Amino acid sequence: MKYNFGAGPCILPQEVFKQAAEAVLNFENTGLSILEISHRAPEFDAIMDEGIALVKELLNVPEGYSVLFLHGGASLQFSMLPANLLAEGQTAVYVDSGTWASKAMKEAKLYGNVEVIASSKDANYSYIPKDYEVPADAAYLHVTSNNTIFGTELHEFPKSPVPLVSDMSSDIMSRQINVADFGLIYAGAQKNIGPAGVALVIVKDELIGKSGRKLPSMLDYKIHADNKSLYNTPPVFSIYASVLTLRWLKAKGGIAQIEKENIAKAEALYAEIDNNPLFKGTCAVEDRSRMNVTFVTVNPDHEKPFLDLAKKKNLVGIKGHRSVGGFRASIYNALPIESVNELIATMREFAASQS
Amino acid sequence: MKYNFGAGPCILPQEVFKQAAEAVLNFENTGLSILEISHRAPEFDAIMDEGIALVKELLNVPEGYSVLFLHGGASLQFSMLPANLLAEGQTAVYVDSGTWASKAMKEAKLYGNVEVIASSKDANYSYIPKDYEVPADAAYLHVTSNNTIFGTELHEFPKSPVPLVSDMSSDIMSRQINVADFGLIYAGAQKNIGPAGVALVIVKDELIGKSGRKLPSMLDYKIHADNKSLYNTPPVFSIYASVLTLRWLKAKGGIAQIEKENIAKAEALYAEIDNNPLFKGTCAVEDRSRMNVTFVTVNPDHEKPFLDLAKKKNLVGIKGHRSVGGFRASIYNALPIESVNELIATMREFAASQS
Repeated sequence: MKYNFGAGPCILPQEVFKQAAEAVLNFENTGLSILEISHRAPEFDAIMDEGIALVKELLNVPEGYSVLFLHGGASLQFSMLPANLLAEGQTAVYVDSGTWASKAMKEAKLYGNVEVIASSKDANYSYIPKDYEVPADAAYLHVTSNNTIFGTELHEFPKSPVPLVSDMSSDIMSRQINVADFGLIYAGAQKNIGPAGVALVIVKDELIGKSGRKLPSMLDYKIHADNKSLYNTPPVFSIYASVLTLRWLKAKGGIAQIEKENIAKAEALYAEIDNNPLFKGTCAVEDRSRMNVTFVTVNPDHEKPFLDLAKKKNLVGIKGHRSVGGFRASIYNALPIESVNELIATMREFAASQS
Repeated sequence: MKYNFGAGPCILPQEVFKQAAEAVLNFENTGLSILEISHRAPEFDAIMDEGIALVKELLNVPEGYSVLFLHGGASLQFSMLPANLLAEGQTAVYVDSGTWASKAMKEAKLYGNVEVIASSKDANYSYIPKDYEVPADAAYLHVTSNNTIFGTELHEFPKSPVPLVSDMSSDIMSRQINVADFGLIYAGAQKNIGPAGVALVIVKDELIGKSGRKLPSMLDYKIHADNKSLYNTPPVFSIYASVLTLRWLKAKGGIAQIEKENIAKAEALYAEIDNNPLFKGTCAVEDRSRMNVTFVTVNPDHEKPFLDLAKKKNLVGIKGHRSVGGFRASIYNALPIESVNELIATMREFAASQS
């Protein structure tokens, strides 16, 4: 038994692993593997319909939005977003809250003007920038709702006079949001949606096809929306395993329920970080992420021995990203509270061993 | 037991299904699912190295080429190719041998001039265009080595004074080729390489980064080559299942061996089509594909009853594409000769029942 705190690709529900493995041998009693069925088969068409419907139901997506399952991960969305929504000469405004926000900006600059209206770079992205004015003539405002590397999360989305776009790769489906407040939401699947190899996009239809730009078909939201994400052969297995994960989320009570569990897990772990004299958090308390919990040892000499102990206890994936150092425990939807408790017990055992 | 003649995603080796299912539960004894391991984990890094090495070994890839596993399928390559290799104002020449060639041309037109130097559109793509002159100042010559929809295959690649580029989506790994003759080869995985969700690109390094165009990072071959296809989170499972398939191919004797088997399967099936008075082929005999065998009933009234009989016999995926009608039996690497024999027996049974 391993406790997988990896930042992504990451733990998914155990029953999803079982069901996905079964489908690789025999997909829903077709006598065929999910790996060998046509994406045009009625059985897969039903899976695509179910995936779209589950996203709409779980997130309460209002009328007028398209739900897309696309190739290329969130990194391709960094380019597709401005290619589709930022016309030549227009300006998009970005909040620079970490590495991924910076990468998103870099790609947008190929398509138009990019204005950084707020940044926490000065403090190694240890807080979420707030209190900025959004120019009313911008094409859109881009925020990153959760900063996987730095362990901060946007707990309250800004009011915006222009379409609000959020990269929600690492906290989508973990919290209730009001989709109507957004122009576009995108997320790589490989945290709370499913395995790597697919990205989810939720886009307000009225924003599509307005950039006046001739786009490669694969980068054109309109083509994917018109073809129900079946313009070309989609990543069949990744979509199927995502649907299994969304079914699991619905069955356990949906996002209201998982949000409660996520709050409980995060509170327990942050309490230990704050109370254990050997550890401390790395972020502004009010901006702490419920998905990626970053912390360090107060004494740098404790870092290696704690990592060794964690390894011995089968806690995997908790080494921090090199940009922050220390530790990062990713506690996504599918991570059970038992894993958090095991980490807490290990931190206590470590403190006891050092006193 | 079903006999899967689907055109793609299609049958893969049965042992690949077993091994992939096992890895979804426990990836190579890590105690973790292949769906939850980090793409930065040493275990996955080894898989990526192995995948690249297997492609190089199986296809005898010479020095000076990069092997990439990318998101987006061959459809994204339709754009990435000209984005990277066709500078502003340059001309690329294309052979129009079918639907996919046409789609590739359409995307290239966004980046530069496209000249069609040969086409078989006049005869519903029932043959492979030959005997054309390739302009010496073109950026590249693009051919489609196998036309999945129309059932034709380029058995001899043209000599070209400019870099030869081939979409080999539906016959890569089925036949011996001399990679040194090519500037770039690309292929969606979902025929002979693995499941849907990843594309293979083999590109001559000296062709990369010459278009002078600022590219979105995800569309830039140089970035993917420099990062060993790990610039962003790759489609982990699709790559892993592809590596399993390539291992299987190597173990059974590599491409020389599978080519022999593919020839035997194709010859047996075409012999039946030619000898059975109720059926006939749809393509020029010399251009017949060894991968996708297209045929029709001589009497159109026989089409439905034969399809019904095939269904009763558990032959799936043999309905022809709407552009051709009739039937298409896709007999890729992993399709056993027993399946071909079953189809032949069914054709004979049908003929007997009609006489």
